[in-house]
Amino acid sequence: MSALLAPQAVDLSSSNTTLVIVVGVIAILAVAIAMVFRNQVLAANDGTENMKTIAGAVQEGAAAFLNRQFRTLSIFAVVAFLLLFLLPAHTDGGNETTLKIFRSVFFLVGAGFSALIGYLGMWLATRANVRVAAAARDEGREPAMRVAFRTGGTVGMFTVGLGLLGAALVVFLFKGDAPTVLEGFGFGAAMLAMFMRVGGGIFTKAADVGADLVGKVEQNIPEDDPRNAATIADNVGDNVGDCAGMAADLFESYAVMLVASLILGKAAFGEQGLVFPLIVPAIGTITAVIGVFLTRPRSNENGLRTINRAFYISAVISGVLCAVAAFAYLPSSFADLTGAAGTPIAGYDGDPRIIATVSVLIGIVLAAVILALTGYYTGTEDKPVQDVGKTSLTGAATVILSGISVGFESAVYTAVVIAAAVYGAFLVGGSGVVALFAIALAGCGLLTTVGVIVAMDTFGPVSDNAQGIAEMSGDVDGEAAQILTELDAVGNTTKAITKGIAIATAVLAATALFGSYTDAIRSSLAENYAKFEADALVFNPGTLVGLILGAAVVFMFSGLAVNAVGRAAGAVVYEVRRQFRDIPGIMEGTGKPEYGKVVDICTKDSLRELATPGLLALTAPIAVGFGLGAGALAGYLAGAIGAGTLMAVFLANSGGAWDNAKKLVEDGNHGGKGSPAHEATIIGDTVGDPFKDTAGPAINPLIKVMNLVSVLIAPAVVGLSAIGSDTNTPLRIGIAVAAVVVLAVAVVISKRRESVIADTPAETNVAA
Amino acid sequence: MSALLAPQAVDLSSSNTTLVIVVGVIAILAVAIAMVFRNQVLAANDGTENMKTIAGAVQEGAAAFLNRQFRTLSIFAVVAFLLLFLLPAHTDGGNETTLKIFRSVFFLVGAGFSALIGYLGMWLATRANVRVAAAARDEGREPAMRVAFRTGGTVGMFTVGLGLLGAALVVFLFKGDAPTVLEGFGFGAAMLAMFMRVGGGIFTKAADVGADLVGKVEQNIPEDDPRNAATIADNVGDNVGDCAGMAADLFESYAVMLVASLILGKAAFGEQGLVFPLIVPAIGTITAVIGVFLTRPRSNENGLRTINRAFYISAVISGVLCAVAAFAYLPSSFADLTGAAGTPIAGYDGDPRIIATVSVLIGIVLAAVILALTGYYTGTEDKPVQDVGKTSLTGAATVILSGISVGFESAVYTAVVIAAAVYGAFLVGGSGVVALFAIALAGCGLLTTVGVIVAMDTFGPVSDNAQGIAEMSGDVDGEAAQILTELDAVGNTTKAITKGIAIATAVLAATALFGSYTDAIRSSLAENYAKFEADALVFNPGTLVGLILGAAVVFMFSGLAVNAVGRAAGAVVYEVRRQFRDIPGIMEGTGKPEYGKVVDICTKDSLRELATPGLLALTAPIAVGFGLGAGALAGYLAGAIGAGTLMAVFLANSGGAWDNAKKLVEDGNHGGKGSPAHEATIIGDTVGDPFKDTAGPAINPLIKVMNLVSVLIAPAVVGLSAIGSDTNTPLRIGIAVAAVVVLAVAVVISKRRESVIADTPAETNVAA
Repeated sequence: MSALLAPQAVDLSSSNTTLVIVVGVIAILAVAIAMVFRNQVLAANDGTENMKTIAGAVQEGAAAFLNRQFRTLSIFAVVAFLLLFLLPAHTDGGNETTLKIFRSVFFLVGAGFSALIGYLGMWLATRANVRVAAAARDEGREPAMRVAFRTGGTVGMFTVGLGLLGAALVVFLFKGDAPTVLEGFGFGAAMLAMFMRVGGGIFTKAADVGADLVGKVEQNIPEDDPRNAATIADNVGDNVGDCAGMAADLFESYAVMLVASLILGKAAFGEQGLVFPLIVPAIGTITAVIGVFLTRPRSNENGLRTINRAFYISAVISGVLCAVAAFAYLPSSFADLTGAAGTPIAGYDGDPRIIATVSVLIGIVLAAVILALTGYYTGTEDKPVQDVGKTSLTGAATVILSGISVGFESAVYTAVVIAAAVYGAFLVGGSGVVALFAIALAGCGLLTTVGVIVAMDTFGPVSDNAQGIAEMSGDVDGEAAQILTELDAVGNTTKAITKGIAIATAVLAATALFGSYTDAIRSSLAENYAKFEADALVFNPGTLVGLILGAAVVFMFSGLAVNAVGRAAGAVVYEVRRQFRDIPGIMEGTGKPEYGKVVDICTKDSLRELATPGLLALTAPIAVGFGLGAGALAGYLAGAIGAGTLMAVFLANSGGAWDNAKKLVEDGNHGGKGSPAHEATIIGDTVGDPFKDTAGPAINPLIKVMNLVSVLIAPAVVGLSAIGSDTNTPLRIGIAVAAVVVLAVAVVISKRRESVIADTPAETNVAA
Repeated sequence: MSALLAPQAVDLSSSNTTLVIVVGVIAILAVAIAMVFRNQVLAANDGTENMKTIAGAVQEGAAAFLNRQFRTLSIFAVVAFLLLFLLPAHTDGGNETTLKIFRSVFFLVGAGFSALIGYLGMWLATRANVRVAAAARDEGREPAMRVAFRTGGTVGMFTVGLGLLGAALVVFLFKGDAPTVLEGFGFGAAMLAMFMRVGGGIFTKAADVGADLVGKVEQNIPEDDPRNAATIADNVGDNVGDCAGMAADLFESYAVMLVASLILGKAAFGEQGLVFPLIVPAIGTITAVIGVFLTRPRSNENGLRTINRAFYISAVISGVLCAVAAFAYLPSSFADLTGAAGTPIAGYDGDPRIIATVSVLIGIVLAAVILALTGYYTGTEDKPVQDVGKTSLTGAATVILSGISVGFESAVYTAVVIAAAVYGAFLVGGSGVVALFAIALAGCGLLTTVGVIVAMDTFGPVSDNAQGIAEMSGDVDGEAAQILTELDAVGNTTKAITKGIAIATAVLAATALFGSYTDAIRSSLAENYAKFEADALVFNPGTLVGLILGAAVVFMFSGLAVNAVGRAAGAVVYEVRRQFRDIPGIMEGTGKPEYGKVVDICTKDSLRELATPGLLALTAPIAVGFGLGAGALAGYLAGAIGAGTLMAVFLANSGGAWDNAKKLVEDGNHGGKGSPAHEATIIGDTVGDPFKDTAGPAINPLIKVMNLVSVLIAPAVVGLSAIGSDTNTPLRIGIAVAAVVVLAVAVVISKRRESVIADTPAETNVAA
C-alpha cells in the first residue's frame, strides 16, 4: 500500500480520444433508445375516464412533490457549490482555480443529472401505471407486462446513458485532470440521490403506513380502497420514492463507480486506465438494450423468471465482450501501458489484460450471485419467506422475530459474498494501486448490469401503482386484477434485488474511493505521509474510535429515517381519521375524501424530515476529520462501510421477506385474508415498510456521500492538523465544533417535532 | 504506535510483593464478606409450605440445567485446553513449556471460576427468591428489599473477590511472565461466560416467550399462573440466564479487563504497571462493600433511587481513593519507574501519577454516564419509554418501530460516550503503549463499580422470581404483591444498566487487548513487523474485508441466538398446548401440569443450540487469521468491536424499553391491562425478550473471546504466513478451511433442526 497513486500528468492519444468519443456516442444512442421506449409506452391506451382521473391526481401530486423537493435541495446545492471553492483541488498540470471552478460546475451537473433522471423516471412511471392497468384490462397479461418492462427500459437507458455521457465528457475535456473534476460530478450525483432517497422514502412510507394503519387495521377496508383519504398519497409515494428516488440512487451508483474507476485507472494503468473504465460500461449499455429487448414475457411463465432470463443472458454477453475488449485494447505487459508523456508505469507484475478481464468477470458474477441470494431470501417460493409465513400461526411477535433472523442471516451471506469479491479482485490485482483498480473494475463489471437492473426495479412501482389505480377505479376485475396482483408480487422481489446490487456497488466504490482518499492525503503531506499511515493502523485507538463513530452514524441514520416515517405516518393517521369522522358518507361512498390534504401533509413532512439525516451525512465526516484527524476519518469510513453493508441488506431483506410473507398469507395460506395469521403478517409488513423503502436503500448513497466528502476535505484536514506542514489547531477544532453544532441543532429540532406529535392528547388519537 | 511493547524481563521488589499479597488478602476478605451476606440471606424466613414447594422445583430445575451445561461445556474446555498446548507462548525469561502448561492450567482456573460464580449466583438466587417473597408477605417492603440487596451483594463480592484473587495469584507466582499465563486465565473465563450467557439466555427466553405465547396471548391467563406448564421453567430461566449467566459474564469482564491492564501495565510502567492495576480494583472491592451496606431502602423511596445513591457514593469514594493511591504509589516521572532489572522505560513524557489518576477517573465517570443514559432510555419515568408506550395506541407495528428507534438512538449515544472515553484516555496517555495502558486503566476505573453493578443486577432476577413464586403459590396478595411488582420493575432497569456497563468494559478491554495482539505479532515477526503494519492499514482492502467479516459475525451471532430462542420457544409452545389439550382439568385447577417436561425441553434445546454461536466465536477468527492473514484479523477484530458495541446496546435497550412500556400500560395507562394497547406492548415485549436477554448480553463475552483467540493464535498465524520467517501455506490454508468446515457443519445442523420444527404439520400447531 505504500506505493499508491504517483501524481503524474496523463494526456490522451488521438486513438484514445476517438475511443472516448465513441463511448460518448454510445451514451447518446442509449438516451435516444430511451426516448424510443418512452414513446412506445406513451402510445399505449391510457384506460377509462375514471382511471385517467386517478392517474392524473397521482401525476399532479408526484410532480408537485418533486418540484418542491428540488426547490428545498437547491439550498443545499448552492451551499455545497460555494463550500467546494474553499477546498483545495489536486491538479495534474492544469490551473488549480480553473479546476476548482469546473469541479463545482460538474458538481451541479452531477446533481442536475441525478434530479433529471429521478424526474424523468417519475414522469414516465406516473403515465405508465395507468397504461399497464389498461393493458391488463383490455389486452391481457403479456401486453401489460410489456408496457411495464418498456417503462423500466426507458429509465434504465436514461440512467446508463447520462452516467456514461457525463464521465466521457469529463475525460474528453479534462484528460489527466479528469479525476478532480469527477470528484465534483460524483459528489453532486450522490448528494442529490441521497436526499431524494430519504425524502421520497419518507413520503412513500408515511403514506403507505398511514393508509394501512387506518384503512386495513382500524376500518378493515382493503388496500387502495378509494374511501381511504391516503390512497392517492400512497400511489404518489411509490413514484417519488421507489421510482424517482431509486433511479437517482442507481444513477449515482453508476456515476460514483465510474469516478472511482477513472481516478484509480489513471494511477494504475496510465492513459489506458482512463479509457478502459469507459469501455466496460459502454459494453454494458449495449447489452442492456439486448436485455430489455429479451424481456419478452412467455405465456404462463412467472414474471420473475422472464426478468432473470434477460439478466443472465445479458450478463453472459457482457462478460464475453468485456474479455474481448480487454484483450483487444490493453497491452500484455505493464511496460507497454502509457503513463504520463509516454512514460510506462513500472513496478507492477502481471498481465493487464488478465487482471482487467478477471476483475470485470468477478463483478458480473457478483451481480448474479446477489440476484440469486436476494431472490432466495425474499421470494415467495423459497424457504425463508415460507418459514416467516408459518410463524404467523404463533402471532405477530414470532413474525417479527423470524423476519429479523432472515434479515440478519441474508445480510451476513450477502456481506460475505461482497467481501469475497473485493478480496478476489484484490488478489488478482496483486498489490497497491493495481489491486484497488482491480476492485474498481469489478465494480465496472457490476455496472454492466445496471441498465437491466433499473429496468427490473422500475417494474416494481409501476405495477404496484397499476394495481392501485385498477383497484381505486373499480373498472378492473376478474383475471385482469389477478394479473396485476402477480406483477405486483414480482415487483417486490425485483425491488429487493436492486437494493442488494446497489449496496454491492457502494462497497466496491467505497473501497476503491479509499484509494483516492489516501491519494489526496499523500499529495498534501508528501514526506509526512508515513505519519498518516501510523495513524491509520486499524488497531490505533484513534482509528478505532473513528470506526465506532462510523458504525454509529449508520445506526443513527437508520434510526432517524425510521423515526421520521413514524412521525409523518402519525400525522397521516390523524388526518385520515379526521376525514372519516368529519366528512359525512365516506364509508358509504357518498362522500369523497380530500386526497390532496394527505398528499400535502406527506410533502411537507418529508421535506422537513430529510434535513437531519442529510446533514448527518455531510457534517459527521467533517467533525471526525477536522476534530480527530485523517487517521480517525479513515477508520470512520471503514466503520461506516462495514456497518452500512450489513445494515442496508438487513433492512432491505427483512422488509422484503415480511412483505412477501403477507402476500403468501393473502394467497390463501395459514388461514388467508382476514385470519389472525394475516393480521400478524400485516404488522410485520408495516414494520418492514420503513426498513426496506426508507432507511435501507438510503444507506447506499449515504456511504458514498460520506466517502466523497472525506476525499474532498482530506487536503484541508491534513493541512490544518499536526501531521500537515502548516498547522492551525484553533481553526481545525473550530470547524469540527461548528459541524457538531449544526448537527446537534438539527437533531434537537427534529426531537422537538417528535414531542409535538407524541404529546398530542390521546383523545384525538382514537378513531371515531 | 511503532514503539509498542518492548519485551523485557520484570521482577517484583519485596515491597511490591507485599502489596500484591495485601491485594490477595483483600480479595479473600471480599469472599469472606460474601459468605457473611450469604448467611444473612439464608437466615431469613423461607415462606409457606406452598412457596417452599415451588421454590424447590425451581432450585432443582436450575441446578439440573447448570450441571448438564457444565458437563456439555467440559468437552469444549478439554478441547481448548489441549489446543492451547499447540500454540506458542511468549516468555519473559521463563521456560516456554512450563508457561504453556500454566497457561492451560489457568485457562481451566478461569473457566472454573466463571462456572463457580455462575453456580453460586444461581444457588443463592433460587433460595433468596422465596425469602424475598416471604419477607414482602410477612414483614413489608424494606425487609424484602434488604434480602434482595444482600443476595446481590453476595454475588457481587464473590465476583470481585475471585477475579482479584486469580489475578493477584498469577502476578505473585509468575511476575514478569504473568501476562502469558493471564491470557489463559482470561480466555477460560470469557469462553465459559460466553457459553453460559448463550445457553442460559436461550433457556430463559424460550421458557418466557413460550409461556407468554400460550398463556397470555392464547389462553388469556396472567403471567406466572400455575395452570401454565411453562411457569416453573420460566422461573428457572431467570436464575440460569439472568443470574448465573450474568454473574459469569461480569466475572469474565472483570478478569479480562485485569488481564489486559496487567499485560499493558508491564509494558508501559514496568514493575509498577504490574501492581497498580491490582490496587485500583482492590479499592473498588472495598468501596463495593461500602456501597452494599449503603443500599438501605428508605421508606417511600423508589428502589432505583436507593440503588443509584449507593452507586454514586461508592463511585466518588473509589475516585478519591484511586487518586490518593496513584499519588502515593507511583513516581512523578517515567524515569523513576522500575522496568526490567531496574531499567527505567524511557521515551515517554508526562507524569505517571496524573496519567493514572485521570484515566481511572475517566472510567468511573463513564460508568456513571452509562448508568444515567441507560436509565433514561429504559426507565418508565422518562420520555423514551413513555413515547413507546404512547405508540401502543396505533398498534403493535408502531410499538415495534418506536422501540427500534429508541434502541438505535441509545446505541449511538452510548457508543459515542464510550468512544469519547477511549479517546480521552488515549489523549491522556499520549502515544504508544502508554496510551493503551491509559485506556486499560480507564477500564480498571470502570471495574471499581462492578461489585455494586453485580449487586444491582442480581436484584433483577431475584425480585422477578419472588413475584413469580408469590403469584404461583397464591399465598401473597394485596400490598405485598404490590411491593413485589415494584421491585420487579426496578429490576428491569438495573438489568439494562448492567448490560450497558458490560459492553463498555468489552470495548475498553478489547481496545486494550489489541495492544497484546500486536505485541504477540511483534515478538514473532521481529524485523518483519513493518510488513504487518502495512497490512493492517484501515484502508487496505484486505483489512477492510476482515472488518466487514467481523461486523458480519456480530450480525450472524445475533441472528443465531434470536433464531435459537424462536425454535426452542416453538417447542415449548407445542408442549404447553399439548398439556392443555391432554391433561384434563388444568384450566379448572383440578389437574396439575407437568412442569418438569417443559424444564427438560428447555434444558435439552438450549444446550443443543449453544454450540453453533459458540463455535462461530471460536472458529471465525481462526478462519480469518489463518486464511487472510494477521492484518485482516486485526480488521476483523475492529469490525467486531464497532458493530458489536452498537448491536449490543441496541438489542439491550430496545428490549428494555419494550418491557417497561408494557409495564406502563399494565399500570393503567393507554387503556391498561387487557386493552388493545396492552396487546400491542405484549408483542413488543416478546420481540424484545431474545434481544435483551439472549443475543444482546452475549455480544459482550463474544467480543472478548474473539480477541483472546486472536491474541493466542497470533504467533502461529504470522509464523505460517508470508510475512513470517518460515512459511507453510498449505498448513495455514488447511487450518482456515478446517475452521470454516467445522462452522459450516454446525450451521447446517442447526438449519436442519429449524426445518424439523418449521415443518411440523400446521394442525399440531393450533391450540386445542
